[in-house]
Amino acid sequence: MTEHDAVEVILAKRDGGRLSDSQIDWTIRAYTAGEIADEQMAALAMAILLNGMDRAEIARWTAAMIASGDRMDFSSLSRPTTDKHSTGGVGDKITLPLAPLVAACGVAVPQLSGRGLGHTGGTLDKLESIPGWRADLTTQEMLAQLESVGAVICAAGDGLAPADKKLYALRDVTGTVEAIPLIASSIMSKKIAEGTGALVLDVKVGSGAFMKDVDTARELAEVMVGLGTDAGVRTVALLTDMGTPLGTTAGNAIEVAESVEVLAGGGPADVVELTLALAREMLAGAGRDDVDPADRLADGSAMDSWKAMIRAQGGDPEADLPHALESHVVTAPETGVLTRLDAMAVGMAAWRLGAGRARKEDPVQAGAGVVWHARPGEQVRQGDPLFTLLTDDPERIDRALASLEGGFDIEGEGTAYRPSALVIERVG
Amino acid sequence: MTEHDAVEVILAKRDGGRLSDSQIDWTIRAYTAGEIADEQMAALAMAILLNGMDRAEIARWTAAMIASGDRMDFSSLSRPTTDKHSTGGVGDKITLPLAPLVAACGVAVPQLSGRGLGHTGGTLDKLESIPGWRADLTTQEMLAQLESVGAVICAAGDGLAPADKKLYALRDVTGTVEAIPLIASSIMSKKIAEGTGALVLDVKVGSGAFMKDVDTARELAEVMVGLGTDAGVRTVALLTDMGTPLGTTAGNAIEVAESVEVLAGGGPADVVELTLALAREMLAGAGRDDVDPADRLADGSAMDSWKAMIRAQGGDPEADLPHALESHVVTAPETGVLTRLDAMAVGMAAWRLGAGRARKEDPVQAGAGVVWHARPGEQVRQGDPLFTLLTDDPERIDRALASLEGGFDIEGEGTAYRPSALVIERVG
Repeated sequence: MTEHDAVEVILAKRDGGRLSDSQIDWTIRAYTAGEIADEQMAALAMAILLNGMDRAEIARWTAAMIASGDRMDFSSLSRPTTDKHSTGGVGDKITLPLAPLVAACGVAVPQLSGRGLGHTGGTLDKLESIPGWRADLTTQEMLAQLESVGAVICAAGDGLAPADKKLYALRDVTGTVEAIPLIASSIMSKKIAEGTGALVLDVKVGSGAFMKDVDTARELAEVMVGLGTDAGVRTVALLTDMGTPLGTTAGNAIEVAESVEVLAGGGPADVVELTLALAREMLAGAGRDDVDPADRLADGSAMDSWKAMIRAQGGDPEADLPHALESHVVTAPETGVLTRLDAMAVGMAAWRLGAGRARKEDPVQAGAGVVWHARPGEQVRQGDPLFTLLTDDPERIDRALASLEGGFDIEGEGTAYRPSALVIERVG
Repeated sequence: MTEHDAVEVILAKRDGGRLSDSQIDWTIRAYTAGEIADEQMAALAMAILLNGMDRAEIARWTAAMIASGDRMDFSSLSRPTTDKHSTGGVGDKITLPLAPLVAACGVAVPQLSGRGLGHTGGTLDKLESIPGWRADLTTQEMLAQLESVGAVICAAGDGLAPADKKLYALRDVTGTVEAIPLIASSIMSKKIAEGTGALVLDVKVGSGAFMKDVDTARELAEVMVGLGTDAGVRTVALLTDMGTPLGTTAGNAIEVAESVEVLAGGGPADVVELTLALAREMLAGAGRDDVDPADRLADGSAMDSWKAMIRAQGGDPEADLPHALESHVVTAPETGVLTRLDAMAVGMAAWRLGAGRARKEDPVQAGAGVVWHARPGEQVRQGDPLFTLLTDDPERIDRALASLEGGFDIEGEGTAYRPSALVIERVG
């Protein structure tokens, strides 16, 4: 491998040039090996954020991150594999019903998930509220479960794209998270290294999402779909609304309960709609668009897969879920139509109540979170419960209430409400 | 002091905003105290380089760097003070004759200098080739010498603008040196903290300089003059040519010898011209434009000041200067007029011969350097000596020769040569 110099690479990007394949390969290898200092990578990340990268640079950067670690291989399985990635939202429990639902349709789902940071929850945090359930599996356990149950949701091992792990931690503290080349390569390096055959990206748009506008979300989606396709993964993306939180709960145990309702054939309409839309894309990517996932919700087989998946990872799907020690009800200040419920306001409140964490090493509270008793478009009556705040620490309630201030609008009875589309656009 | 968060400050500048006074004060204090990590400051420095700072931000940043350390006070001296700063060039020995010349005119010169890095030499490196001379003085020694001799050239103590020292080392390895706000605040924080009453900035322009074009150099000069003026220092800047190296030598001992020639009333015309131009500005800034420095060169009093200044710092001004162990002569490849001599080529050759250093901790060779036997506009004859390369390590000669390749042009006899102006513009 050609040797380069960190300052040479930084200057090239700083001055608006493109990085050569050789510069990119060297940069990722040398950074992973500790030969490029964190302050040098931080300057480079800022230059990438402000000056951009073209598609070929992003593809090479992604390939170099994949090459920094292991690749998984699911070719020994008897069924095709398909996976989903969400860029993160509020109340986004979709992975929980989705993975067993798709497994019930005969396609294996190897879902490597993460824990939450900030106002968006983490799938593993939610599942860890189930007594006994464990996130850490060996590759052998994962393969065995994919063969027997068809769905696994577990923690990504340290071996996949270690360059990304190191770079993500650096970006988090240096104001360089919001760079499309770095976001796209971070997500796709892990998903490609994971070895899934097909992939559906749920790119969230709106106040509660990372991407606040459709144009930026579309650009990110197009870059990621291109990266996946070029790497031989059948990849599509849905841009979906995250101006309003999903379902009626944001937290950990309360989102598990809501997911179980969906698997039982009920649950909030938007969660059901998005779960089915993503399931259809996942099945199509795996060549199984002959199966209608709605049937598998209706006939109970998705619920069976859920229970098998939870049990296979030590959890008890019938056990009572933890409850928060304290609750606080916010009542509707007036009578009328709830015309707006802001995802960021709800996400911040849930975070402050203890459902999320500020630093990676912080614990989360299993029972904490926010329940909203009306969805936009619904009538509310003055004095009726609008939110229930749940936490183990009553002193957290005041800050959560502050987050909710200005986070919803109630307009006079009879106000017309035009719901926005949940699935905004399909890319791929 | 209001507490801020490093990521908040980085995001503000990354997204094109301006930093508040409170954010700037906190950033400089926290970085000096180690509360902002190097990777965070590197990301901020890159954002400043790419998105800029307005004059008010630069002024506050400079003030915060001054406040990070000590300030010197020369108000107890019986004469006014005046100082000069050069942005660095090749063969730029001007400080050596200039400081004693201005002192001989009755104005004190408290010149805090640095060592060289890269292709531009350092004033202290040059003076350290004089047997016995020492760069490190206490503040008391400095004040006493300013009173008795009127001129001191010494190392800046650690107490002045420690934030700048730390930030400069970081910028050097993160590709963030070439940012006008950071260059201007770095230079001016030290000069203002030093406490001089007047200041002349020699802003170099051309291949051998930091600033390659007049527009950028003018912008830097205007920012620095504004900073000095606002801080109560009478400040002007001269933009001077650094496409061609100054004088006929680039090195350490050989530049001292050339400076002594100037003090003796001889020396190369360009070194004499620039020394006098800067001396006149320094004297005018100190309210002494009634004195003509040319008289002080002619009557020997500048030479007397030089000897007194060297002796006061332990040096022997009459001692033989060190000679390089090896020399190599490059002859003119053809007969004609030397129409171009590139400052960067000569500077790189001198550096590679051992006159400069690549890392702060490297030693320099006192005798190493380059002598050129013709200046642009002069006739040369094929086979006559054009350069003499001096070094203690003969294995350095090949790389120095490579630096000189393409670094000069000889055109046919009778070719008209139009010299470029040495002093390009005055700002202030």
